[in-house]
Amino acid sequence: MSQDEGQGASAVLANFVAATSWSDVAAQSHEAKRSILNFFATALGSAYDPVVTSALRTLSPFSGAVTSAIIGRPERLDALSAAFVNAISANLLDFDDTHLDTIIHPAAPVAAPVLALAQARGFCGRELIMAFILGVEVECRIGNAVSPGHYARGWHITSTCGVFGAAAACAKLLGLSADVIANAIGIAASQSAGIVENLPSAAKNVSVGNAARNGLFAALLAAEGYSASARAIEGPLGWARAMGNEPDLKRLVGGLGESWEIAKNTYKPYPAGIVIHAVIDACFELRARLNQRVDEIVAIIVQGSALLLARGDRPVRNERDARVSIHHCAACALLFGKAGVPEFTEAIVFRPDIMSLRQKVRAELDTSLPDGATRVCIQLTSGEMLSEIVMAARGSLAAPLCDLDIEEKLRECSRLSATSWNADIIIEDVWRLDTIADVSNLMKSHEEHAPVAKPVSTRL
Amino acid sequence: MSQDEGQGASAVLANFVAATSWSDVAAQSHEAKRSILNFFATALGSAYDPVVTSALRTLSPFSGAVTSAIIGRPERLDALSAAFVNAISANLLDFDDTHLDTIIHPAAPVAAPVLALAQARGFCGRELIMAFILGVEVECRIGNAVSPGHYARGWHITSTCGVFGAAAACAKLLGLSADVIANAIGIAASQSAGIVENLPSAAKNVSVGNAARNGLFAALLAAEGYSASARAIEGPLGWARAMGNEPDLKRLVGGLGESWEIAKNTYKPYPAGIVIHAVIDACFELRARLNQRVDEIVAIIVQGSALLLARGDRPVRNERDARVSIHHCAACALLFGKAGVPEFTEAIVFRPDIMSLRQKVRAELDTSLPDGATRVCIQLTSGEMLSEIVMAARGSLAAPLCDLDIEEKLRECSRLSATSWNADIIIEDVWRLDTIADVSNLMKSHEEHAPVAKPVSTRL
Repeated sequence: MSQDEGQGASAVLANFVAATSWSDVAAQSHEAKRSILNFFATALGSAYDPVVTSALRTLSPFSGAVTSAIIGRPERLDALSAAFVNAISANLLDFDDTHLDTIIHPAAPVAAPVLALAQARGFCGRELIMAFILGVEVECRIGNAVSPGHYARGWHITSTCGVFGAAAACAKLLGLSADVIANAIGIAASQSAGIVENLPSAAKNVSVGNAARNGLFAALLAAEGYSASARAIEGPLGWARAMGNEPDLKRLVGGLGESWEIAKNTYKPYPAGIVIHAVIDACFELRARLNQRVDEIVAIIVQGSALLLARGDRPVRNERDARVSIHHCAACALLFGKAGVPEFTEAIVFRPDIMSLRQKVRAELDTSLPDGATRVCIQLTSGEMLSEIVMAARGSLAAPLCDLDIEEKLRECSRLSATSWNADIIIEDVWRLDTIADVSNLMKSHEEHAPVAKPVSTRL
Repeated sequence: MSQDEGQGASAVLANFVAATSWSDVAAQSHEAKRSILNFFATALGSAYDPVVTSALRTLSPFSGAVTSAIIGRPERLDALSAAFVNAISANLLDFDDTHLDTIIHPAAPVAAPVLALAQARGFCGRELIMAFILGVEVECRIGNAVSPGHYARGWHITSTCGVFGAAAACAKLLGLSADVIANAIGIAASQSAGIVENLPSAAKNVSVGNAARNGLFAALLAAEGYSASARAIEGPLGWARAMGNEPDLKRLVGGLGESWEIAKNTYKPYPAGIVIHAVIDACFELRARLNQRVDEIVAIIVQGSALLLARGDRPVRNERDARVSIHHCAACALLFGKAGVPEFTEAIVFRPDIMSLRQKVRAELDTSLPDGATRVCIQLTSGEMLSEIVMAARGSLAAPLCDLDIEEKLRECSRLSATSWNADIIIEDVWRLDTIADVSNLMKSHEEHAPVAKPVSTRL
């Protein structure tokens, strides 16, 4: 750790980012492609959400020359605004990837700006993958250094740490020197924002979009000569301490290049809070055993850690609540055997049979169960009790989605949004991304330039 | 305080903002004009600083249709980007206004977006003044609620609270309803950022610019239907607690409309840290008494509170250090009898006679002196000692700059930057702002559309 005693954390990270070449990251490139594929899946799935449409409508009069695609749609914006909108759509349903140690959704704030910038400037696929891996590395390491206190205090960690990853990734893509990358990371510290209190509202999306947009902005400003404090992250009046944590510098800069945070990335099979996934899996198992007797359920007892209860035991007033409700997730899994995007729409959330089944769900603390695990017990009118334990949910590091699962997720999301972008071409292009000479072609190849008429609701 | 028990702070502030009419604020309009005049002064003075030029260069390719002036320059940008750049120039030297209870510089984050928006949409002067007063009210009340802990912890309070003021002001200007204004304020909470560690660098300007830009953005998003948590500011995982403070709700919403924060605004005669102003005034007095004997000074002892020493007792490595150095301020005041913008430029900061005089300055704690006061003692080669006490510096609430002082500050700043904008027209227009039917004419009347060739340095 003598390295970071002599120089600031920004410089240590920046030197690493600047010195990394393709051969250093090639072994991580498959996981990067999986992350990017999952990013496209969720961005496509939410491409026509009213929140995305409103962001697009708000930013359109403020866009410079349009260079960068809005994923899943025919519109384009400049790279800063496209980064904002695409990060929003990718993260909108929290259906994007998850770095479990921090609960950061790594891809949205990093992939959105590097794709927008790469398209605008015509960078090649390898440059894009390398920048993406390094951005994820920087954002997750900074997240590690302040976890778990940071999120618990009220910081929306995907937003607050995402801006650093976006800055580092864009600075790498722009080929900036180590000193300039350090400034970009330091400038990001002055733009880090986003609170958990706003999570059930569209304001949450603003901080995620800003993380992407402002990370790119930080890199552009640094390239124009803007400087930052060498200790913007860890200094006495710096980011980490202002945010409420003494940063763990060992986790921040120890073992750079030896272990990779992207290797710890996970992908969700369900657009629900990740700690609730085990509940869905358990209910799928129970449904199979119930054999059509859902009507006979008297009570559903969901047991789990304090984290599960804190995140998932809540009243359901709208779709956003439903996605983080053990009550709603259990009800859908038991009644439909499904917990996909349609199961969290208003039409399902307020269906009488689902509302009735939700009423039967009760949460119980079981401190013997680790975070991410659950025991679900069902009591039937006959008095019969069924129970299932799930220790590792589908999509967790212990039970990861396979490549085909992610492909299928992308196709499914693409069908749900009825986007005109071609899912199969995206899948093919992302798998061969390291051979693509100009990412602008990749982003264009899926566009249908004739605008598609869509019903646009303004209710958010 | 029963009001805020029932509804969130955002709603209480928003209801107040929505319900306020011209007659409610007319008595504050003279102070608003003084603040806006001072804003133009500092924005004009820094209009051609390399930091401003770099921001303009960075944002130009990302500007939509250009609607809004860059103060002091011939260029225009869209309203979001113009708000960013003008807030930077106004605050760049910390020569702008100061709300002493919080050390917020109120005008930069609020005047920049309301002027940019008013010019783009053709609002009248009264609408602009009213929005400005309300924006300052919201930003300073939120600052009051978390002071003094907030700044002390490392938050750059002008940035972190400025975004709320900008959001409220722009929402008022747009004529949004109370509910929508509340959402704008809540969205601002997810964009609040900026750290003190970055203060001696250009990264500080990024958070000030963002406060202005993102406050306007929050209002535009709210107008498009974006929502926020009703308790984004004071909720358990909300802005104030994440930032490190239990908010004082009484200071936040008590007595709204009875007392006005803009009445507490102050304007600096010197572009130096405000706690150092008394040192400059004392040295001016001593200089008069010294009668050319500056060469005979052996030691300069500056006595003051812990705050004065914490902020002002520091080595001078560059112009930014000089502006917050008691050593440099005392040296300039004694040697030149001046402490204006030129006295803090590189040419003066590294002059041998100034460097030598700085060496003779020594700070001493005197806990009997309040913040903002000082005793300066000078020892001469003859053994003679001279001393001066200043309890209320020029420009403080107890010794405010008069209207003519602010006019002269604007003219002086305008001369220093050699802007082509006409200082006298600005002064005349701001004093009659409440009678101007379309602010876009005001912002245009000072522009010379022929670009002026300027030496542009990229060193920041």
